[in-house]
Amino acid sequence: MNTTYFSPVQEGIQKVENLMRSQADNQHPDLRAALDLLISSGGKRVRPTITLLAGKMLGAPETELITLAAAIEMLHTATLVHDDLIDGSLLRRGIPTLNSRWTPAATVLTGDFMFARAARLVADTGSIELMKVFANTLSTIVNGEITQLFTNRCQVDREGYFDRIYAKTASLFETSASTAAILSGVSRDEIEYMRRYGHSVGMAFQIIDDILDFTGDEASVGKPTGSDLLQGIITLPTILYIETYPVDPDGISLINGDCLDDNQAIRLAKAIRNSQAIHLAYEEAQRYVQKALQYLSGFSDTPERRALEDIAAYIVQRSL
Amino acid sequence: MNTTYFSPVQEGIQKVENLMRSQADNQHPDLRAALDLLISSGGKRVRPTITLLAGKMLGAPETELITLAAAIEMLHTATLVHDDLIDGSLLRRGIPTLNSRWTPAATVLTGDFMFARAARLVADTGSIELMKVFANTLSTIVNGEITQLFTNRCQVDREGYFDRIYAKTASLFETSASTAAILSGVSRDEIEYMRRYGHSVGMAFQIIDDILDFTGDEASVGKPTGSDLLQGIITLPTILYIETYPVDPDGISLINGDCLDDNQAIRLAKAIRNSQAIHLAYEEAQRYVQKALQYLSGFSDTPERRALEDIAAYIVQRSL
Repeated sequence: MNTTYFSPVQEGIQKVENLMRSQADNQHPDLRAALDLLISSGGKRVRPTITLLAGKMLGAPETELITLAAAIEMLHTATLVHDDLIDGSLLRRGIPTLNSRWTPAATVLTGDFMFARAARLVADTGSIELMKVFANTLSTIVNGEITQLFTNRCQVDREGYFDRIYAKTASLFETSASTAAILSGVSRDEIEYMRRYGHSVGMAFQIIDDILDFTGDEASVGKPTGSDLLQGIITLPTILYIETYPVDPDGISLINGDCLDDNQAIRLAKAIRNSQAIHLAYEEAQRYVQKALQYLSGFSDTPERRALEDIAAYIVQRSL
Repeated sequence: MNTTYFSPVQEGIQKVENLMRSQADNQHPDLRAALDLLISSGGKRVRPTITLLAGKMLGAPETELITLAAAIEMLHTATLVHDDLIDGSLLRRGIPTLNSRWTPAATVLTGDFMFARAARLVADTGSIELMKVFANTLSTIVNGEITQLFTNRCQVDREGYFDRIYAKTASLFETSASTAAILSGVSRDEIEYMRRYGHSVGMAFQIIDDILDFTGDEASVGKPTGSDLLQGIITLPTILYIETYPVDPDGISLINGDCLDDNQAIRLAKAIRNSQAIHLAYEEAQRYVQKALQYLSGFSDTPERRALEDIAAYIVQRSL
């Protein structure tokens, strides 16, 4: 994994994790243990890395920037805790989820506690505007999940797909970048460019995730290949496959609004994996990365800007 | 039910409910329906009534005060949604709970959405200090619930009881009053008096709730008489009963750290109901009410102050 984009903010990420851990100080020992576990098994910290890099590039005050980045990652982790509970996921990144070890009650409450601490961290930045952006982002994420719950599965709907990945992933990426710009006190135009950068990176990130669900190594992805399709979740590779091979009978079933049985889904997933659709989906992700690079192009050439470019490029190269 | 305390803010409460409903505008129709249902089946609105009365008494700006009161009730309702899910409660105030009609997934997410909207409403007041108080209050409530989950049941612990009812109930009552004072821009002393007023009212409120669990009419309380004791939750009437009748064998079992079986719990609940302990618990609640009235006594004599006094008095008279 290419992690050179971390180097300008490596120390900052350490401070972010320490600040996150300290949120459970003076709380019940089991809650402290849960938070520790969640932070220790955290992922690549892409979102707070974007926040720190953007803030450093644009001159954000350091303490508030660390606080903001901790709020971003705390909010992200809280949503994952509730997601894993809702989906009944037992592993995330190969590590047992909180809900696999705790009762649903304790899991719901741990997520709630993390929402509360994320809110407190944003308040500590002293910016009402950041508070509003955060609250709206959480509304967007949750409304997206509710929409997914109440929408019929197995629908081949390009626009619905892009709406869904915006709510699920790109909304928090755009907040990671735009809030750093807001904190830096730069112009509205610069805030807007950073928001779009985050949006594009987030869209690319989720498209790649959806591709890896078909092409990824089952052990490293941590779920069966084609698991989205098995659950009736139609992502970009499936949509592109059906557009490219309109005669595939499994695709026709989906177009007719019928869900596939497991055998059909496994067969279709295999056909998609071996088709041009994967390449076409990569191209779509690559277009978002190109946009992301364009939005950065007006900022002066600093190590932070180059690291933000690296993140965008890394997004489509990653295998996990 | 004595509701004269509503009259100075009746119109305000209507605005609060409208603002709460509007939080789901442009969201998924099922989410809008859920929020509507939750707001329509809401309770007596004691918390936002305190906020509106305190703010009106102290000169808070009207629009922000309505927004603040909506945030308070939204936060309260969100915690109830998750609580009912965790407890598996099928009825609240005689009305089916959200979790009795929806999946756990949809219920968790609806609560999360309401947390997000509560945060947005507080941000709309424009006060960072209010944001911090809100975030801390939610941390306190959730940490209290986690502590209860991870603490052995059937413990006769007076200090633990008061800590628990503070986290569960009094913390949000104190926030309902103190945030109105903060918004009004009054002195630190006045904010502190209002905080203590809210705290005292909240402590009295929960003690009465815990008494009604023993004495209330099963149909109107909506759960079996003595249900706390049946679940191993030791509240003030039980603690006072054991202090007063130290020879009761069921009480001795509890003191020895043993949980009661259902027959023992029903027998002990009946003994408590018919004992002096109920009266002693009322006296404890009454002491909190007296404190609440004292904290108000320095404020000038307005209809709002009298309504706040009425609320305190009503708390111990209510039968539901």
